[in-house]
Amino acid sequence: MTLQTNITQARTILQRYRDVREQSLNLCAPLEVEDFVAQPVAYVSPPKWHLGHVTWFFENFILAKYLDGYTLFNERLNYCFNSYYQSQGPRILRNKRGNLTRPPLREVLAYRSYVDEHLARLLGQYRDNEVPQELAALIEVGLQHEQQHQELLVTDIKYILGHNPLHPAYVETEGRAGENKKASKLAFTTIPEGVYEIGYQGDGFCWDNELSVHKTYLHEYAIANRLVTNAEYIEFIEAGGYDNFEHWLDEGWSWAQGLEVKAPLYWYEQDGQWWHYTLQGLQPVNPSEPVTHISYYEADAYARWRGLRLPTEQEWETACRRWYKKIPKNGNFVESGYYHPIAQQGPKDHQMLGNTWEWTGSAYLPYPNYPQFEGGLGEYNGKFMVNQMVLRGGSCATPISHIRMAYRNFFHPDERWQFTGLRLAK
Amino acid sequence: MTLQTNITQARTILQRYRDVREQSLNLCAPLEVEDFVAQPVAYVSPPKWHLGHVTWFFENFILAKYLDGYTLFNERLNYCFNSYYQSQGPRILRNKRGNLTRPPLREVLAYRSYVDEHLARLLGQYRDNEVPQELAALIEVGLQHEQQHQELLVTDIKYILGHNPLHPAYVETEGRAGENKKASKLAFTTIPEGVYEIGYQGDGFCWDNELSVHKTYLHEYAIANRLVTNAEYIEFIEAGGYDNFEHWLDEGWSWAQGLEVKAPLYWYEQDGQWWHYTLQGLQPVNPSEPVTHISYYEADAYARWRGLRLPTEQEWETACRRWYKKIPKNGNFVESGYYHPIAQQGPKDHQMLGNTWEWTGSAYLPYPNYPQFEGGLGEYNGKFMVNQMVLRGGSCATPISHIRMAYRNFFHPDERWQFTGLRLAK
Amino acid sequence: MTLQTNITQARTILQRYRDVREQSLNLCAPLEVEDFVAQPVAYVSPPKWHLGHVTWFFENFILAKYLDGYTLFNERLNYCFNSYYQSQGPRILRNKRGNLTRPPLREVLAYRSYVDEHLARLLGQYRDNEVPQELAALIEVGLQHEQQHQELLVTDIKYILGHNPLHPAYVETEGRAGENKKASKLAFTTIPEGVYEIGYQGDGFCWDNELSVHKTYLHEYAIANRLVTNAEYIEFIEAGGYDNFEHWLDEGWSWAQGLEVKAPLYWYEQDGQWWHYTLQGLQPVNPSEPVTHISYYEADAYARWRGLRLPTEQEWETACRRWYKKIPKNGNFVESGYYHPIAQQGPKDHQMLGNTWEWTGSAYLPYPNYPQFEGGLGEYNGKFMVNQMVLRGGSCATPISHIRMAYRNFFHPDERWQFTGLRLAK
Amino acid sequence: MTLQTNITQARTILQRYRDVREQSLNLCAPLEVEDFVAQPVAYVSPPKWHLGHVTWFFENFILAKYLDGYTLFNERLNYCFNSYYQSQGPRILRNKRGNLTRPPLREVLAYRSYVDEHLARLLGQYRDNEVPQELAALIEVGLQHEQQHQELLVTDIKYILGHNPLHPAYVETEGRAGENKKASKLAFTTIPEGVYEIGYQGDGFCWDNELSVHKTYLHEYAIANRLVTNAEYIEFIEAGGYDNFEHWLDEGWSWAQGLEVKAPLYWYEQDGQWWHYTLQGLQPVNPSEPVTHISYYEADAYARWRGLRLPTEQEWETACRRWYKKIPKNGNFVESGYYHPIAQQGPKDHQMLGNTWEWTGSAYLPYPNYPQFEGGLGEYNGKFMVNQMVLRGGSCATPISHIRMAYRNFFHPDERWQFTGLRLAK
Repeated sequence: MTLQTNITQARTILQRYRDVREQSLNLCAPLEVEDFVAQPVAYVSPPKWHLGHVTWFFENFILAKYLDGYTLFNERLNYCFNSYYQSQGPRILRNKRGNLTRPPLREVLAYRSYVDEHLARLLGQYRDNEVPQELAALIEVGLQHEQQHQELLVTDIKYILGHNPLHPAYVETEGRAGENKKASKLAFTTIPEGVYEIGYQGDGFCWDNELSVHKTYLHEYAIANRLVTNAEYIEFIEAGGYDNFEHWLDEGWSWAQGLEVKAPLYWYEQDGQWWHYTLQGLQPVNPSEPVTHISYYEADAYARWRGLRLPTEQEWETACRRWYKKIPKNGNFVESGYYHPIAQQGPKDHQMLGNTWEWTGSAYLPYPNYPQFEGGLGEYNGKFMVNQMVLRGGSCATPISHIRMAYRNFFHPDERWQFTGLRLAK
Repeated sequence: MTLQTNITQARTILQRYRDVREQSLNLCAPLEVEDFVAQPVAYVSPPKWHLGHVTWFFENFILAKYLDGYTLFNERLNYCFNSYYQSQGPRILRNKRGNLTRPPLREVLAYRSYVDEHLARLLGQYRDNEVPQELAALIEVGLQHEQQHQELLVTDIKYILGHNPLHPAYVETEGRAGENKKASKLAFTTIPEGVYEIGYQGDGFCWDNELSVHKTYLHEYAIANRLVTNAEYIEFIEAGGYDNFEHWLDEGWSWAQGLEVKAPLYWYEQDGQWWHYTLQGLQPVNPSEPVTHISYYEADAYARWRGLRLPTEQEWETACRRWYKKIPKNGNFVESGYYHPIAQQGPKDHQMLGNTWEWTGSAYLPYPNYPQFEGGLGEYNGKFMVNQMVLRGGSCATPISHIRMAYRNFFHPDERWQFTGLRLAK
Repeated sequence: MTLQTNITQARTILQRYRDVREQSLNLCAPLEVEDFVAQPVAYVSPPKWHLGHVTWFFENFILAKYLDGYTLFNERLNYCFNSYYQSQGPRILRNKRGNLTRPPLREVLAYRSYVDEHLARLLGQYRDNEVPQELAALIEVGLQHEQQHQELLVTDIKYILGHNPLHPAYVETEGRAGENKKASKLAFTTIPEGVYEIGYQGDGFCWDNELSVHKTYLHEYAIANRLVTNAEYIEFIEAGGYDNFEHWLDEGWSWAQGLEVKAPLYWYEQDGQWWHYTLQGLQPVNPSEPVTHISYYEADAYARWRGLRLPTEQEWETACRRWYKKIPKNGNFVESGYYHPIAQQGPKDHQMLGNTWEWTGSAYLPYPNYPQFEGGLGEYNGKFMVNQMVLRGGSCATPISHIRMAYRNFFHPDERWQFTGLRLAK
Repeated sequence: MTLQTNITQARTILQRYRDVREQSLNLCAPLEVEDFVAQPVAYVSPPKWHLGHVTWFFENFILAKYLDGYTLFNERLNYCFNSYYQSQGPRILRNKRGNLTRPPLREVLAYRSYVDEHLARLLGQYRDNEVPQELAALIEVGLQHEQQHQELLVTDIKYILGHNPLHPAYVETEGRAGENKKASKLAFTTIPEGVYEIGYQGDGFCWDNELSVHKTYLHEYAIANRLVTNAEYIEFIEAGGYDNFEHWLDEGWSWAQGLEVKAPLYWYEQDGQWWHYTLQGLQPVNPSEPVTHISYYEADAYARWRGLRLPTEQEWETACRRWYKKIPKNGNFVESGYYHPIAQQGPKDHQMLGNTWEWTGSAYLPYPNYPQFEGGLGEYNGKFMVNQMVLRGGSCATPISHIRMAYRNFFHPDERWQFTGLRLAK
């Protein structure tokens, strides 16, 4: 597949580049130097590694190929900051990233500046003109990639601080939108049977996994108008949901029993009250807010317990296109600075975009006529298409300019350190 | 869901019951007493356990409920022979079945006779009349269940004998059909775009996972007229297919590297010639026969290396219904006594039913409006619907009266001790 | 080291050979064919494997070298029945012995007969004369080796049947000596400070690890006149001994916590009464009998809880030589047929030889001037001299002609499926 | 046991306290802030944790009990900085110390200052007088404890930097003593048979495991006059020592095969030349220097390969007392600043104290009449007395005021990240 983008004016690209790159540093501003190193579990990467890896992406895939005479900042960093690109040479084992006390943070920041400066120099060659499509698209890939890591930065920082025995807050906020709002009564919208189109349609950037646009046949279904709330989820807990195998997939039951899972990640019960660690520190669980940090197994068990199910990704996308014309500017994305899902803002707030990623009942597989990226970037999505489930809609940690209605995120069914939630269907 | 069957005449049921039950013993006839005990890996069960478990199924789900005054053969056997039915009480851990040296084989055989006798007594109450639908269907479930375990008996016996350092043969056969046949040149049939119906349509028995019948939209596709052969698969090996990450799913690559997989299960290279363990003992690999004992990862990698892909299960079923009106009586099912896939018998032999299960590119998930069985039998299929892939078509170890064009088998992508193979699509 | 034996008369050797060999079969007489195959954990070997392995020892180390024109029974059995002799070629992994459904039992029995017949032929060459020292000693090694496996046969059979959900009895006995005896009050004997000699002194067979005879300096110590009883051990349990880290070695505490160990192996509490699985089936724990099936960690924790300690092996051997002139003929060895330790038979019964192996506080290390066997047999003892503790005195599963006061047994500190017990010192 | 010390003058204690405490900070001076956090494997602790833990020891065992009105710096740090004292409350899992990004380094340094200030205040109460024996001894324990952690700081820092892909140097030194020296020819000194005294004799501080002083009988033995060198060890490697099971303990062979160990830790072969990571960065292996970073398994295999053995700890101590009257002031201890063993300085340099810890052939077990510390400190040594081997003599990372000829260090036989080496005996 050929990469595509509709941002090709050099000045516009540079401005967007600077905005995205700056945001990565902003997200790290509240950290201590020590926070940049820790890797408490293999799937959480140290913030310093994120900062270096996204920079390496620009250096390795763009500067080294497109800027004449470019000298690598430090060729030994390739080994440190390559993530999983087999085609791009050997690299540190994923679960060893926490050993990377060197290069120190200041060197990583110098690396960022060096790459930023050279990227600007590269774009400067085009002044006010159009940048060639291929190069413009590659830069856009680099920025989309950095935005994905911004989301991981937020969730990995949450994991690092949330597993520290001192439970330090990442930010102190005075209040969240909707702190006093109540979620509306659960209601379902029926979508009629028929052939629908799925996939990204437009001339902007999208990942290869959102293509090709294709037809799908949907039988009539009904989908909930909002996310499941903490109050509703606590009903499941109190009804013994975690202790009754009937609601669970077999592997989910083994997972929950083996790890003694009794509630969402970060939840603690104290004297009959549920608390959870948030990026504002330990807080009482707000009943109106959407439940988050649940695995697919939990989402599926909850839905079965209600006698319902999760929507497929096709059902989700079809409903989304009905309810939304475009991405809502006031959605609870990372720019809101809450770093936590908020309560429904009124009966017309369908909570589809932002707040929490929504587990769907669809396995992550290629669409018909899937046009995999060529070369090293082909490793980006395609090679993960097994044993993972699709999530849709973005979260409170997703940059608003990163999400699309066609966007397909994917995680293993036991993973729950992302801001994951669920919506019911039937 | 209510179970269904179209076999309800008492005498017919009894005859079918006796045929199926006898076949289980026939399959065990070549074994030594010692062979009945071993469990070399957790997913392989000892033959004795299979014989007991299928019998327990009839006792526990039928006799104990429908035959007045029935006395359990030995109530302590429930613990030994329940497989995974959480609703049916505690049971021995799956990976501990190899410890069951007691009850000895002769007691298990006595258990079988006891249950058979009482089942005949139960059916005798209806003489030449119709058996109530519910009971008839339950017996049919028990028989279908036993047939599934017959297939497992064959593949588990193969695993036990094939991992014995003496490599003993299970049967000595003088020859196999098609030993001298050559597979025809690979060709593809194109199926036009459109809405198709998927799922079991009929009044006979089927599993809940084959329902509901539903519509699906298929884009135009082409599907191979036969299975991939050993000769073709050896080309992949010789081209370094196992050493090049580009062809592999990421988890498949880790799997193959971690276990040093270099060929299908049971294959050994000696002096440049490939040999494999078959139920006829160690044999040279026949280039014309379909490749078998490959994981989903290998099937997928092979297809990518060819620049092609696996069919989805909907594509497979649609092609199957075009090529076949009914299950072919001369297909290579377990009744053929070859216990191994055979070469294509001519260009019109599409090899869809029998020979090898075919990995599809579809994850095992519920169909729209999936009507899960109620009660304990609801655990049969539904709770496994995650992290597994669908296989279609039956194998040389499948009883012919067990297979359907709509039949959905499922295994984890790394499992390959079943007779698994693949067909290409594009 | 040169092997030594004082049994060199051909007829005497043959008689002893036949007695020992027959005893192995006697011990297996109560088994079902299926019992011969199971390997519930890696350190327990299937009875069939024991029968084959000890036979292989005679074939491989003696017949193949000393009997002209000897033909191996089946050369492929070397792979099956070599245990850990790296020098004797590749062998099946220890934890895969449970896969050896073939060769079947009857073939193993034929193997035994074949080897026995040839061994008799070999000895027949010497008629009534002396057999050369080297050959006589090798045969004696083979018999001592088989006697060790007889003890393992008893304990492995106990493990296999004791972990079967049906808890079948191995033998039915009407009573045990001392069933109504009471252990005498615990008393200690003081041994004065001084230099003592340790090690095997005599011209009969001994293992290399019992040599060289050497001097050791013992400070004054006191040693208990009998073994610790079940009643005394239950006091430890009831005092919360398993729940208080203060009594435990750090690794012992981790072991007990990790495996949730709360009592000796095979013990079950039911309604406030302790039961245990014995080779006579499930029985109430007899308070007067010596406690058995405890790990070194438990033995050590018990002693610390009493404010005492275990004796060193030098202290044990010195006391033993004081109390005993020779091995008592009426000791509770395997020939008694109880297969379980019995209560002290009177205050003069010091319970040092037979009943239970006694954990000492000594690590298993070479004696000064340790004369390791040469060649393949050098692997017998020396290579295990790390991370194991010495046990002394033999058990109710040890053949009487196998034990010596100098005998050093050794197991890892967490192992307890042997008949292990303890004696206190201070 | 009652703790003992001969340093009881308040001013002297305070001076020693300040010297030891300052040395901990000196050792950390070359680090980046990030280096303080990493825990690459469970047995390596982050430098920040060491700094906090030794401080907690003073606060918890001394200030909280002896200084009236003392307020804990931060009571939540107990959870972070308790190591393994079960009696001192819950604590972070050992393998989770790398998660402790908080408290940040500056807070740990503030914690140190706070405790130092209060310790000085406590000692100030005694001015120029004698401090009560109990308190003086506790402070001495705290300092000896901190010195042990100083050695761990050096070896853990080496592990952290040595496993960083950039291999940064910890110090840059211009040369090491003996860089051009050659080790003298290997020679052995014979020690006559007899009764010898073992254990710490004096009125200064020692650990409980060095007591009681007791007699031991030694048969005649010979002990090497110096450590084994790299050149000698390379002969073992080149002779295929790592590939021949005959030289190895069974568990050692499994260890080396399982981890593919082919050389000491930190060694790399490049173009036929051996390099190793040292705290001066990557360096060619100097043939004259003592080999270091070897496990007990390797030390034992090397000795067997030479047809020799390791000395027991009693043999070692007896030889040491012959050769040394006191700890040599110019020994290669941590104060030398080399942080690596150096070549023998002449034939009279027996290399017993400093340079490398020497594996002995003795298991770590209590001496006769072992007087275990009472209370929480009783956990210090006694509970580790199983499955470990004794090492003697101190290393280039040991503070000179910390070592004694009677000092017993202990590690598991597979551990080799300390500066471990070996000396031959026969």
